[in-house]
Amino acid sequence: MDGMPPQVKIVEVGPRDGLQNEAAIVPLDVKVGLIERLADAGLTAIEAGAFVSPKWVPQMADTAAVMARLPPRSGVRYAVLTPNMMGFEAAQAAGAKEVAIFAAASETFSQKNTNCSIAESFDRFAPIAEAARTAGIAVRGYVSCVLGCPYEGDIAPAQVAPVVARLSALGCYEISLGDTIGVGTPARARVMLRAARAAAGGTTLAVHFHDTYGQALANIYASLEEGVAVVDSAVAGLGGCPYAKGATGNVATEDVLYLLDGLGIATGVAMDRLLLASRFICDALGRPPASKVARALTGQTA
Amino acid sequence: MDGMPPQVKIVEVGPRDGLQNEAAIVPLDVKVGLIERLADAGLTAIEAGAFVSPKWVPQMADTAAVMARLPPRSGVRYAVLTPNMMGFEAAQAAGAKEVAIFAAASETFSQKNTNCSIAESFDRFAPIAEAARTAGIAVRGYVSCVLGCPYEGDIAPAQVAPVVARLSALGCYEISLGDTIGVGTPARARVMLRAARAAAGGTTLAVHFHDTYGQALANIYASLEEGVAVVDSAVAGLGGCPYAKGATGNVATEDVLYLLDGLGIATGVAMDRLLLASRFICDALGRPPASKVARALTGQTA
Repeated sequence: MDGMPPQVKIVEVGPRDGLQNEAAIVPLDVKVGLIERLADAGLTAIEAGAFVSPKWVPQMADTAAVMARLPPRSGVRYAVLTPNMMGFEAAQAAGAKEVAIFAAASETFSQKNTNCSIAESFDRFAPIAEAARTAGIAVRGYVSCVLGCPYEGDIAPAQVAPVVARLSALGCYEISLGDTIGVGTPARARVMLRAARAAAGGTTLAVHFHDTYGQALANIYASLEEGVAVVDSAVAGLGGCPYAKGATGNVATEDVLYLLDGLGIATGVAMDRLLLASRFICDALGRPPASKVARALTGQTA
Repeated sequence: MDGMPPQVKIVEVGPRDGLQNEAAIVPLDVKVGLIERLADAGLTAIEAGAFVSPKWVPQMADTAAVMARLPPRSGVRYAVLTPNMMGFEAAQAAGAKEVAIFAAASETFSQKNTNCSIAESFDRFAPIAEAARTAGIAVRGYVSCVLGCPYEGDIAPAQVAPVVARLSALGCYEISLGDTIGVGTPARARVMLRAARAAAGGTTLAVHFHDTYGQALANIYASLEEGVAVVDSAVAGLGGCPYAKGATGNVATEDVLYLLDGLGIATGVAMDRLLLASRFICDALGRPPASKVARALTGQTA
């Protein structure tokens, strides 16, 4: 159809954004097993963990061990979240080839989630970006709350654009626009995307939808129509942000892949192998997948 | 956005397509209470039941009693499914102002679901259409399996178009295109819709998506972009066709309304009152809603 990208990169965020927001702390072996199965399925961009305080995020305390256990794979990149220089140095020591920095479009969310203003968050990002450039490490930027904030309500495109511009200016190769609480619908998503694109200075944009209100796939379809060719998702719909009131998990990778396969858009990801990764982590968590595709194709039910 | 209808009619199919396909048989009082609450929410087109064999569909055995219990409401129409003349006569006796006839785009599904070929099903519909015209009763046509069939797999637009043409020729005022097993994705839905429109001779088209693979809202959004302005859905995502392998329920009316509200498309339906209807039927069934919006807004979980 008109304007659709012929190819989409799926960024698998389950092992980080997913597991970080699960109540259970998943053992190291399971994390590595999950990431290996995701790579086996053809995913080439996988968020493997986060170098954050184990006091605040115990689920990610073993990220260095996860990275050490992952054999290099041609064409596959494991990214890690690094909120500050301490995190970046740990990521570099762990051999990370990509780090992610996390900004918010909502001032209140920035304060509540990262204990600093948006401006202060960029003070933290600047040395990371500088060090990453020197070390040849790619930096991915996140913007959370691009359509709504649990504290402020609706977020305007004019609040998103300057954050996108600053991440672009820092040298991020890709900027992921997150509907953290899943309140967006397609028309607002499109207006936001156009504002973000105008501010991005040519930097690639990705979309990151949570499925709290069931709107994620409609929003992704609208984003594809806007020419977006990078989509974040989490296998089995893992996760949900504990700091965001009413948030549920990421849109499920299986459901995104079903959509993209149906649209004839190439991803390099094989559904049958993806379902093995989904089943593996759901068995470990002892619960059915939050993916309708996984439920329909494997007979697992709620 | 471009080409979107300013207004959409939601056709609430929960009391029929939903409850017909639930394992539990819901008491008369609950059915009437549900339909009343749906009308209170602003829904003007409500499928209230079916005049079908109580042997095959015991869930609909009390449709005459349901109709007798519903006070007339200005601007609200209660439709009933009538597979044959016996059903039509019962509907007429019950005072129905609208009946629905049900054809399939798949020959095998027609045989398995209604025990006759597609051609034979039209032999049954012809006297209904004739009698309805004489009696001034509106006839809505359904086409099931417009994108896929549990027995035949993918269904081509060329299989849908002639069924649409015949329903239009019979005098249906509206034709609802059903993705009975929920396998469709937006690009295929759009191609099907264009073929259906070319065959419909100006008859209004509606879309009827099941959410088996989580694609329903993306498909509805694409349908809106195709100019479709009538959307079928079931409160709380009730139902699922027991004759269709792997089918789950209809897309939830709450989730459709959230999408339409977000797009600024008028429906006349109030979310807060719709959630009362949703809660009412979920309490009666003793289970959480299959609507992410209902779960997010009312705190009910699986």
